[in-house]
Amino acid sequence: MKKLVFIKLGGSLITKKDKPMTARNGLIEQLAADIAVVIEKFPGYAFVIGNGAGSFGHYQVVKYQLKEGVRNPDQWKGVSEVHYSASELNTIVVKALLKNNVPVFKLQPSAMLTANDSQLASSNLDAFFKLLKTDLIPSVYGDIILDSTRGCTIFSTEKIFDILISEALIKGFSIEMVIHLSKVKGVLDTNGNIILEITKENWPEIEKNISKTEGFDVTGGMKHKIEASLRYAEKGIVTYIANGQGKNSVSRIFEKASRELTTIR
Amino acid sequence: MKKLVFIKLGGSLITKKDKPMTARNGLIEQLAADIAVVIEKFPGYAFVIGNGAGSFGHYQVVKYQLKEGVRNPDQWKGVSEVHYSASELNTIVVKALLKNNVPVFKLQPSAMLTANDSQLASSNLDAFFKLLKTDLIPSVYGDIILDSTRGCTIFSTEKIFDILISEALIKGFSIEMVIHLSKVKGVLDTNGNIILEITKENWPEIEKNISKTEGFDVTGGMKHKIEASLRYAEKGIVTYIANGQGKNSVSRIFEKASRELTTIR
Repeated sequence: MKKLVFIKLGGSLITKKDKPMTARNGLIEQLAADIAVVIEKFPGYAFVIGNGAGSFGHYQVVKYQLKEGVRNPDQWKGVSEVHYSASELNTIVVKALLKNNVPVFKLQPSAMLTANDSQLASSNLDAFFKLLKTDLIPSVYGDIILDSTRGCTIFSTEKIFDILISEALIKGFSIEMVIHLSKVKGVLDTNGNIILEITKENWPEIEKNISKTEGFDVTGGMKHKIEASLRYAEKGIVTYIANGQGKNSVSRIFEKASRELTTIR
Repeated sequence: MKKLVFIKLGGSLITKKDKPMTARNGLIEQLAADIAVVIEKFPGYAFVIGNGAGSFGHYQVVKYQLKEGVRNPDQWKGVSEVHYSASELNTIVVKALLKNNVPVFKLQPSAMLTANDSQLASSNLDAFFKLLKTDLIPSVYGDIILDSTRGCTIFSTEKIFDILISEALIKGFSIEMVIHLSKVKGVLDTNGNIILEITKENWPEIEKNISKTEGFDVTGGMKHKIEASLRYAEKGIVTYIANGQGKNSVSRIFEKASRELTTIR
């Protein structure tokens, strides 16, 4: 059985933050071409690709005030639109990958998962695991999930990865690594230098220091990401938080040639 | 609990047969606007909308010879492309419905269903049933399904409807009707006249005659459709096979004003 590699294309990386529903098409093309090269060069791995929603879903979440779920019927249209928009961005990513001959298969998270009070309530990952037995590469994305209590809830790509990784481990899959591609060069210390490695041992000290850094983890995303990665590390999964903006950014990680990344193991 | 109405927009109705991957956008807009009116006028019903793939998925199925499944690795890319294409057409339909304020929610069949030797192997319809409890309207479509034996298999919109209807009946939902919108004016007799009503009683005689009609049921689709509808009729579900090309074609069915339809009860 091939070892799994999860690659996340961050929402803020692949969309323009200041322009609602605008993808960075050139960058997406560049990433797709690079991922195609990696898949060709490293046939021992099976890949799962995820992408964040960035300015796509977010715009409608704000417009329809869906952060706290659905409290009046007018908001249902917003739920439709958030999913529609998230799916649109995923389509752009999938299209770029197909163009580069990557046999990527769209997989709608909100069709496979349901929630109750923002927690996972049910999942059916049969299609996902069937894909892993073929040459097809599942493509998932941050999505709006139907929720028994709140009407809807947002599951980020990382949350989706977390569900897929947990289930894959239970099923006996071996997972090699998780790669987060974003606009940051990695996790930065108080002097703005990249922290090369985070482990269970050095994290408490690092956390104490970087929390003071201005702009660190405004949304709580980075701390959560590191802590999830440390949990994966216990299962032998290495996580890379890397800059996805340069040329060959994915290849360079595989070839251990990237200087703009933090390794969490 | 609202009574369910299933509406199918036929693939040959909403796409151009002679031009691969070309939607009849004007007609889709017209249908979406009409469906919006029906939903507004008949609040006692909950709707499920499905669309066929027409010239969208079909083109890639032929190109990659996927009718018999996947027999060599090069065909996997074809599986990706068939799904991509089917999803593209569904996106066009969903976009038109959203534009008309119909809160329609895309629901990927290949993410919910898997197959074994062309038969349904597993399904998770939690998201579908959650949608039915809200104001959201599920939008499904004919799709390529992952298959343990054959690699992939095509499930038509009718097959998807069949799965949804069976499960909904088991869950105690009441289903009022199934509407098939297509380019035909209904089921035609040997003289080219519309057969107004088909029942369990008159079907054997009708079948004997219309089978002789030139062009009837070249693909076996119509006979299958009628026989499935007669099975639904036993559960009290009425099926309409109707022309979807005229203005207000859906409204007219609801208002019992359509003259271009066959009723199967």
